[in-house]
Amino acid sequence: MAKRIGRYTLQMEHMPSVQGFASICGKKESEGPLGQYFSKVFSDDLVGEDTWEKAESKFQSEAVDLALEKANVEASDIDFIFAGDLLNQCISSTFGLRNLGIPFIGQYGACSTMAQTLALSSMMVESGMANRCVAVTSSHFCSAERQFRFPLEYGGQRTPTAQWTVTGSGAIVVGNTGESPCISAVTIGKIADLGIKDPNNMGAAMAPAAAETITSFFKDTNTNASNYDLILTGDLGYVGSELLNELLQRDGIDISSIHKDCGLMVYNLKEQDVHAGGSGCGCSAIVLCSVILTKLKNAELNNVLFVATGALMSPTSSQQGESIPGIAHLIHLQSNVSQNSAES
Amino acid sequence: MAKRIGRYTLQMEHMPSVQGFASICGKKESEGPLGQYFSKVFSDDLVGEDTWEKAESKFQSEAVDLALEKANVEASDIDFIFAGDLLNQCISSTFGLRNLGIPFIGQYGACSTMAQTLALSSMMVESGMANRCVAVTSSHFCSAERQFRFPLEYGGQRTPTAQWTVTGSGAIVVGNTGESPCISAVTIGKIADLGIKDPNNMGAAMAPAAAETITSFFKDTNTNASNYDLILTGDLGYVGSELLNELLQRDGIDISSIHKDCGLMVYNLKEQDVHAGGSGCGCSAIVLCSVILTKLKNAELNNVLFVATGALMSPTSSQQGESIPGIAHLIHLQSNVSQNSAES
Repeated sequence: MAKRIGRYTLQMEHMPSVQGFASICGKKESEGPLGQYFSKVFSDDLVGEDTWEKAESKFQSEAVDLALEKANVEASDIDFIFAGDLLNQCISSTFGLRNLGIPFIGQYGACSTMAQTLALSSMMVESGMANRCVAVTSSHFCSAERQFRFPLEYGGQRTPTAQWTVTGSGAIVVGNTGESPCISAVTIGKIADLGIKDPNNMGAAMAPAAAETITSFFKDTNTNASNYDLILTGDLGYVGSELLNELLQRDGIDISSIHKDCGLMVYNLKEQDVHAGGSGCGCSAIVLCSVILTKLKNAELNNVLFVATGALMSPTSSQQGESIPGIAHLIHLQSNVSQNSAES
Repeated sequence: MAKRIGRYTLQMEHMPSVQGFASICGKKESEGPLGQYFSKVFSDDLVGEDTWEKAESKFQSEAVDLALEKANVEASDIDFIFAGDLLNQCISSTFGLRNLGIPFIGQYGACSTMAQTLALSSMMVESGMANRCVAVTSSHFCSAERQFRFPLEYGGQRTPTAQWTVTGSGAIVVGNTGESPCISAVTIGKIADLGIKDPNNMGAAMAPAAAETITSFFKDTNTNASNYDLILTGDLGYVGSELLNELLQRDGIDISSIHKDCGLMVYNLKEQDVHAGGSGCGCSAIVLCSVILTKLKNAELNNVLFVATGALMSPTSSQQGESIPGIAHLIHLQSNVSQNSAES
């Protein structure tokens, strides 16, 4: 059984593994630097549906179908599905997945949802209470803009710190088959709120939570940046990434040489006019479920810390003058562990 | 470790227990038939805050504080808090609990949230991955009305099938101390959607999910209604409760003699003018975390199935012509199990 090491980290013993994964993205994402890695592209943002919300549900159900196919399992083989998204009452997930017949546990972690659903899936498989779980999330530029900011038709001007919500969905089947890559540790984050109030500067609001979770993990595991190939944050973007590095450096922690951010990887920042980078639940989901898991599977990457961050606010809380609480959950992904432990 | 029995049910071995619980309610709820059982009443719906959303957060943080106090533990003794609510982006939970410093896992299960958070807390404690977890949820009549239906100032007329959102919050500390009552089994539900589209008739939309989960549990455990003292549904209200009994009777299952619904228990239906009954995450939360857990603790009840139901829709999905998917999670609560097993 997973051991609790330090205050916040669970070290897995049975090494739940990624049995299958898939990423579905929109046209703009397919034109970015990671285009070749995505499992499927929907060039029409509506995917033939009559609303963006229904389209986002379609993205999510397609991602799950494809991940199941890649894992070579059926929906009936899955014990629990952990799913969430950014829309009010998480309707992308509930409507997208309602026909699967899988016991459903709805999650809300804002843009940290990919890490949150993957963490819970891993913990359930590790414990033996599930043989297989699915972790899934999505976001959609058009549904997010009209819900969180302005109707697209309004043509509002974007601030320099604004990020661009990714249209896409990522899904992972977590199983107990000992395949590579595996999930070797999980750190669930606490809410951090340093008083930032600008809903167009989410990266800055989320950076303190990322710094706190990374610091907790290093302390709990008695490791540092040199032990990992890559520390991948979710969607801090340009502003949040700088702030994360500053905050950590104040505490004597330097991750700058191995830090990347999904929000900075998914688009060509200048050419694609996305200001501070990509964002949304789908951002870290499609980056993780494409290039990162592929490279871990091929052992081009071996030790990755995936730290997805979420801004736990709503338009209502911002209108009421509240600051933006942030959260970050960390997943330690490793390649080849089962092979290594079989040799030892 | 918990054993999976049948397709959907987890039977606990270590019997995670309710170490402490608390319920906070508003004035209307305190005037209902269960008034004497609630831990604390806030007669002012705003609790001194300047918005209903902030007031709801206050209800939730007070419920957690009180549950911790009753369990005789500190926030720093808690490994995970599972929390959720009805508001967009779950802001009652995130703002209410942001200062606790407890690793936070946000949940969305609509009105099934009390069962969902209690299920996950129990599973984490059962597995040994946590020593103690908190499960909490809330709802507030005023914040729910303006978000889901009409601004209160509009004075819209309520349909006969409409339910009244409970103002209140319930919290439970789940631990591994072997106290009574304990959680002896959990069944996580699947999404059920029979095509009901009327957002003023949530009970009818949720009843099929409740019927499905109860049927699964009986099948998995090879038991029937005669094995339990009480089957307590969340907030089906008058219409949904009738439908649940009809649906089950079609399959030859009769729970009518031991079925109660939190939505029908929390108010004096006619005198308090609440039409089809109470609803909201807070409804099943305050009923469970008051009279039910008290009676289980005192062994006035011994075998209870708590089945909270949720309607997984949003105003947007309803406006777009969608039907209302429902879900129900089941928790089997028992008194005195540790004592019994100590004797055997």
